Amino acid sequence: MNTVFRAVGIAFALAGVSHLHAAEGKLTAGQVIEEIKTHVGVPWQSQTVDTVKAGDPNVEVTGIATTFAATMDVLERAGRSGKNLIIAHEPTFYNHLDQTDALKNDPVFQAKERFIEQHKLVVFRFHDHWHRHKPDGILTGMIDALAWNNYQDKTTPQLFEHPSVTLDQLAQEVKSKLNIRTLRVVGERGMHVTGIAFLPGASGSDRQIEALERENVQVLVAGESREWETVEYVRDAATQGKKKALILLGHVPSEEAGMKYCAEWLKAFLPGVPIEFIPAREPFWTPQ
Amino acid sequence: MNTVFRAVGIAFALAGVSHLHAAEGKLTAGQVIEEIKTHVGVPWQSQTVDTVKAGDPNVEVTGIATTFAATMDVLERAGRSGKNLIIAHEPTFYNHLDQTDALKNDPVFQAKERFIEQHKLVVFRFHDHWHRHKPDGILTGMIDALAWNNYQDKTTPQLFEHPSVTLDQLAQEVKSKLNIRTLRVVGERGMHVTGIAFLPGASGSDRQIEALERENVQVLVAGESREWETVEYVRDAATQGKKKALILLGHVPSEEAGMKYCAEWLKAFLPGVPIEFIPAREPFWTPQ
Repeated sequence: MNTVFRAVGIAFALAGVSHLHAAEGKLTAGQVIEEIKTHVGVPWQSQTVDTVKAGDPNVEVTGIATTFAATMDVLERAGRSGKNLIIAHEPTFYNHLDQTDALKNDPVFQAKERFIEQHKLVVFRFHDHWHRHKPDGILTGMIDALAWNNYQDKTTPQLFEHPSVTLDQLAQEVKSKLNIRTLRVVGERGMHVTGIAFLPGASGSDRQIEALERENVQVLVAGESREWETVEYVRDAATQGKKKALILLGHVPSEEAGMKYCAEWLKAFLPGVPIEFIPAREPFWTPQ
Repeated sequence: MNTVFRAVGIAFALAGVSHLHAAEGKLTAGQVIEEIKTHVGVPWQSQTVDTVKAGDPNVEVTGIATTFAATMDVLERAGRSGKNLIIAHEPTFYNHLDQTDALKNDPVFQAKERFIEQHKLVVFRFHDHWHRHKPDGILTGMIDALAWNNYQDKTTPQLFEHPSVTLDQLAQEVKSKLNIRTLRVVGERGMHVTGIAFLPGASGSDRQIEALERENVQVLVAGESREWETVEYVRDAATQGKKKALILLGHVPSEEAGMKYCAEWLKAFLPGVPIEFIPAREPFWTPQ
């Protein structure tokens, strides 16, 4: 009964939703995705990784889980809590384009695909357009998690003016606020920092180095970097006596809270649909 | 005087070296590189990153420093110890092909280029062919550093049969032997492991996942991986109850000892030339 009331609620609440599925009682995964396209506020790109990665988009949505990535663990937890549409920021099958040809005979891939099929789950990736949302949905959620809203630059949202601390203190602060086990730092531990550039995820060395070239930036906080790229750039800068440093949070902790915010954002135009953020959590630990 | 004696020594010791430079007293950087090509034991590839990255190959070599990467710190230490030819495994200018167009106005790049020029240093990259050397020069040096020679598979050199330990114990062992501050692990801490695949550096997720697909491999020990690739594959495998794990050493600690071995290898056919391994060292630290 509850489900029927919810569905009726959705039908009246959403202007952009057709009468068809409202009459049927529930939204399909495809219809939820259409709602996302309607509400994201930027034109939907023809070249994008934001597509259905697994499952049948005609399946009726019993609930939505937002997450960093549709890991096996997230899929199991989503299934247990009755959420059959997983909206994930990162790939499901271990490469950016979710190409599965090389994995056809791989037992990990096969078991994951089977699990999705057996539980009638649908996985949709929401990456490019969530970053293009104004403001960037990932950055917005991360700033909330860091409580850096008051430090943010008015015109360049990835820049922050932090109260003066040492690099070590800043690293401790983000490690503690984001609950990270394996954060890594490059630079002089005792240097004083105020200017921060924050680029979640793996934005590439071009963007990362550009951020570090800014005179008012001493520290780049990022998700990950290939280690011969930005990492060695910062190490060289530090050796040259330049006040530059790098804090690598790891990819998951650098973006995950942006998918928590995504759950809140979805609730605003999908009232009545059960929506839950399921953290994928940091994959790494260190030996004792 | 010492230099002259050394030069005469070189002239007599090396069959492949022309009489010209012997008469002049010293080898040029270009002549040392020719010696490397002669001795590496595999055909020199036309498509390769193994080229001179900075400096004039006609400069006379006062000494050779082998290293993971020609970082600013390594360049300074090489210069101080009178080694003007730096043989580095990884890029000098922060990307795989050492493309510098985007860096032309970058102060870190400019200062590094100026330092190389002022000190008349030559940087040569020795990557592809050192891996193709039989056996792989990087792997050979790393196995020595790990003291895993007795565990190595006779036919597949990147496979190892280790005495049974827990994943946590194995991670502790490599952390301690390679003196790593920021090693990261994915998998069940208490699982027992014996079968190890060791792929130094960033060999790519195709090779890394292929290694993990082997039935007799429980742990892949690697340098680095993009975090949405092999890292998530291993996390999914572990959730599925498969006995698979990943130890990421970091790129530098996973290959550096291979360039220590390179110094020994060079000494065998460049007698009399001062040759020294200069460690680039791990770039990362963690907050206290």
